[in-house]
Amino acid sequence: MSKVEFTYFPVKALGEGPRLLMSYGGQAFEDNRINPADWPTIKPTTPFGQLPMLSMDGKKYAQSLALSRYFGRKYGLTGATPEEALEIDMTVDFINDIRAKSAIVHYEKDETVQKAKHEDYSKNVYPDMLGKLNDIVGRNNGHIAAGKLTWGDFILAGMYDYLKVMLRMPDLDTKYPNLKKVVDNVYALPQLKNYLANIPKTEV
Amino acid sequence: MSKVEFTYFPVKALGEGPRLLMSYGGQAFEDNRINPADWPTIKPTTPFGQLPMLSMDGKKYAQSLALSRYFGRKYGLTGATPEEALEIDMTVDFINDIRAKSAIVHYEKDETVQKAKHEDYSKNVYPDMLGKLNDIVGRNNGHIAAGKLTWGDFILAGMYDYLKVMLRMPDLDTKYPNLKKVVDNVYALPQLKNYLANIPKTEV
Repeated sequence: MSKVEFTYFPVKALGEGPRLLMSYGGQAFEDNRINPADWPTIKPTTPFGQLPMLSMDGKKYAQSLALSRYFGRKYGLTGATPEEALEIDMTVDFINDIRAKSAIVHYEKDETVQKAKHEDYSKNVYPDMLGKLNDIVGRNNGHIAAGKLTWGDFILAGMYDYLKVMLRMPDLDTKYPNLKKVVDNVYALPQLKNYLANIPKTEV
Repeated sequence: MSKVEFTYFPVKALGEGPRLLMSYGGQAFEDNRINPADWPTIKPTTPFGQLPMLSMDGKKYAQSLALSRYFGRKYGLTGATPEEALEIDMTVDFINDIRAKSAIVHYEKDETVQKAKHEDYSKNVYPDMLGKLNDIVGRNNGHIAAGKLTWGDFILAGMYDYLKVMLRMPDLDTKYPNLKKVVDNVYALPQLKNYLANIPKTEV
């Protein structure tokens, strides 16, 4: 494989899952953290007008979950059977649904609408979804699926701080404590030590 | 495999991709189209509080895209290489982003907010995303990725009418004509003839 370049904003959010997975797998990559001011110039050069983007073997790839699944397969972090792979995929998409819901609030520009939506979701959406995810991790030994470390754990770990901010839930650690276990299990992996020691600290 | 049961609302939308794929693969399944009035009773019995749901070998699975990828692998409708599988996955997730954007408008309860969002997205979001998708299909011989029929085509075909309604774009067929080619290619598959002849016609 020729030089691999990973392009994203200077935050964890949707970029950190793939970054963590490449680091875990020992894949050298140029960690291109762009200045948000340069985004309008870069946007037309991406496959979908979105980041993250991966440049590899002269081709450009995108979409955080798709990239993470790709590296997960490569590094043996997927299911042992097609059904286990399905279990990882479906739980990752459920986590992504939680993220997407909270993003509707977070990126709402009208403050009144934003407040109303946050109140609605905090009452009618988040408790059920987060409670279910917390139970799932509880049944899977501190992992999101298959009872073991998979690429799906890297997704949750990478977006955890971002999720906390978008959910406006600073007490997420204690409210749904199993989620934090997934994060801690990933960040304790010895394969990530070097990467984690060398990246900038970011809030999300 | 024991009896397979597929549970969803009596529409195509997010359920039709997996239904079409099972039909393509010759997988017999109980096509359980629930009465929306029964949803509150069924919801707590699902893995994530969401439909569609697949019951198979005594286990319950969910998430439309994850289920479709599972059947896609099973029936040889995935990529020939890991990079091709990535290309399918990323384009499917991009299509899902378009769906999710339009769903924000479609399911907005406040009419004023809904109108404003639709106008915003119609100007600033949809043209770029749909234009990109149209170009991608143009480069892939009437398919969403890998230049051939894959499980990703079934996703777009299954949700096409739903997307059209949520985008409020009755002229989607002519505005981005390559998308309709994907749909037509899927619906012309001889493996689907029997299934298509026997399902209720639905608007979305």
